[in-house]
Amino acid sequence: MLTTIAVDAMGGDNAPAIEVEGAIQAAHDLRARILLVGQEERIRAELEHQGVPNPRKQRLHIEIIDAREIITMDDPVAQAVRRKRDSSIRVAARLVREGKAHGLVSAGNTGAVMATAKLMLGTLPSVDRPALAGIFPTLKGVGTVLLDVGANAECKPEHLKQFAIMGSIYSRSILGVRNPNVGLMSIGEEDVKGNELTRETLNLMKAAPINFIGNVEGRDIFTGDVDVIVSDGFTGNVILKTSEGLVEAIMGLLKTELGQTILTQIGAMLSLNAFRSVKKRLDYSEFGGAPLLGCKQICVICHGSSNAKAIRNAIRVAKEFYKGKLSERIESELGRMAVIS
Amino acid sequence: MLTTIAVDAMGGDNAPAIEVEGAIQAAHDLRARILLVGQEERIRAELEHQGVPNPRKQRLHIEIIDAREIITMDDPVAQAVRRKRDSSIRVAARLVREGKAHGLVSAGNTGAVMATAKLMLGTLPSVDRPALAGIFPTLKGVGTVLLDVGANAECKPEHLKQFAIMGSIYSRSILGVRNPNVGLMSIGEEDVKGNELTRETLNLMKAAPINFIGNVEGRDIFTGDVDVIVSDGFTGNVILKTSEGLVEAIMGLLKTELGQTILTQIGAMLSLNAFRSVKKRLDYSEFGGAPLLGCKQICVICHGSSNAKAIRNAIRVAKEFYKGKLSERIESELGRMAVIS
Repeated sequence: MLTTIAVDAMGGDNAPAIEVEGAIQAAHDLRARILLVGQEERIRAELEHQGVPNPRKQRLHIEIIDAREIITMDDPVAQAVRRKRDSSIRVAARLVREGKAHGLVSAGNTGAVMATAKLMLGTLPSVDRPALAGIFPTLKGVGTVLLDVGANAECKPEHLKQFAIMGSIYSRSILGVRNPNVGLMSIGEEDVKGNELTRETLNLMKAAPINFIGNVEGRDIFTGDVDVIVSDGFTGNVILKTSEGLVEAIMGLLKTELGQTILTQIGAMLSLNAFRSVKKRLDYSEFGGAPLLGCKQICVICHGSSNAKAIRNAIRVAKEFYKGKLSERIESELGRMAVIS
Repeated sequence: MLTTIAVDAMGGDNAPAIEVEGAIQAAHDLRARILLVGQEERIRAELEHQGVPNPRKQRLHIEIIDAREIITMDDPVAQAVRRKRDSSIRVAARLVREGKAHGLVSAGNTGAVMATAKLMLGTLPSVDRPALAGIFPTLKGVGTVLLDVGANAECKPEHLKQFAIMGSIYSRSILGVRNPNVGLMSIGEEDVKGNELTRETLNLMKAAPINFIGNVEGRDIFTGDVDVIVSDGFTGNVILKTSEGLVEAIMGLLKTELGQTILTQIGAMLSLNAFRSVKKRLDYSEFGGAPLLGCKQICVICHGSSNAKAIRNAIRVAKEFYKGKLSERIESELGRMAVIS
């Protein structure tokens, strides 16, 4: 049976064009069945526009599920999730809950997607708080998993311990790291460095069944030496947005400077492949969105400004998540720990 | 009278070579008198090695003040500050306290430098907590002031308000921004976004005599649209180290990729000026260390891996800090507020 992923087609900044394009790519090369959820006529028009008026004829497993409402980036989260029962994200989540899809991908309002996922998909019994796992590009190629990058602005030590275990399972199962090491985001390597939360968390971490290496710092994110980094969701979200902003700034600066003179323009042309390669290595869309770890079912959240490749890769992640039985593994490991302690 | 700056010559990773080189540069072109504090024979050897065996003969105002002990990066801060009374940083701070120097520059163990500064220089009466102000490069050229970047891992709303006022004065006086706007580092622009600390701080900020623009995010640091960004010292330090790590990673990637083929090597040569320019724009050493705001006297803290230019620029900042009567301004503004409230 094909893995079926429900894609919120109305979520991102350029919806539904990007979502439709990503879905077509995924249906082509991932052997996945895609349910595009949203305003039927707009999705159909976009499919036609992109040369796929009738997916079945092209042997693409793409179907449209109509949902009339849209949650925008400006909608107040709590209200929108409660009231907009026919929103694309809510309908997509319902498809997963009812077993009609194996996972959910959305580039919509992150707060609303998380709230909907928690409400509709439910949290695993042994998990206190689902966490959003960001995958950061590194010098070594394999991504560093940083969690939480925004689901929980306020965290307790016990939450961070659970994040560490969920992140380890993710790194092992999806990124293929054999024995992922785990660091605690802090402001110095020594145990005394940090804030109240990190100091209280340290001892819990040391006793947890993970490959814990102690405190790490911001500069350790990109070296590839640390596989999983744990932080509260406020700090994690600040790191994510700071990194995105800095990459954008550097690329912008380079582009401007390389366009300054004929010489640098020629230089830029000759070095084009090098730039492309660096850009690709830094490209968040390669990793395809942030999975919400700790829910009973699967939800992968993409950036609002995602391109089609990011949507396609998020569908890939959702599929691997399902195939790898990640939720079951998380519940089993955390459940076992709860029995021991 | 020449402004006199005491430089901890034994602080940085490459002390005293880098400190001596920075001091020579500063004495050359900043019209400043430098007191190099540390093991006399090593400093003297380094001066000779760098072609300045007798500064006075070259009309350079450089003097050596002997201090026998050194606080290393691994020294436990509290103990080192208390016990090593003849350490270079402590003696340098004493020179400032005794009025023999107008300010202090150190690239030593940040925790020890901050503790020594607070102990020896004292905190301004109206300031609860001195804060370390990091200056970040931006697309517009003028630096964004982010504080606190590491002096206070745990902060209260009232502290953040004081940081905002001190940062505004710094941006105005040293960076020349006429009416600096101030943002609160958070994880979304809306008032409800953030953690307990940011939500509690928002109302205080709105009532403060600053040009407050509300919550900002990590990506706003590098655009140059926000002049002063306030955060607790844990988050600020994580931002600082994340940014440094990412810049290093990107530059490393570029270098590797550009060396891959003859074509990209030629391309890189032709675009050399563009790269140099970008590197310069991103170069933290251009901004010369982080001033500790809120002490009675002046202390500028440099990165342990600072180069000579960073030391020279830190001396420049310390001099401008003194000439601009920054401490007096901070005390006057915060003191006035305390009377009003």
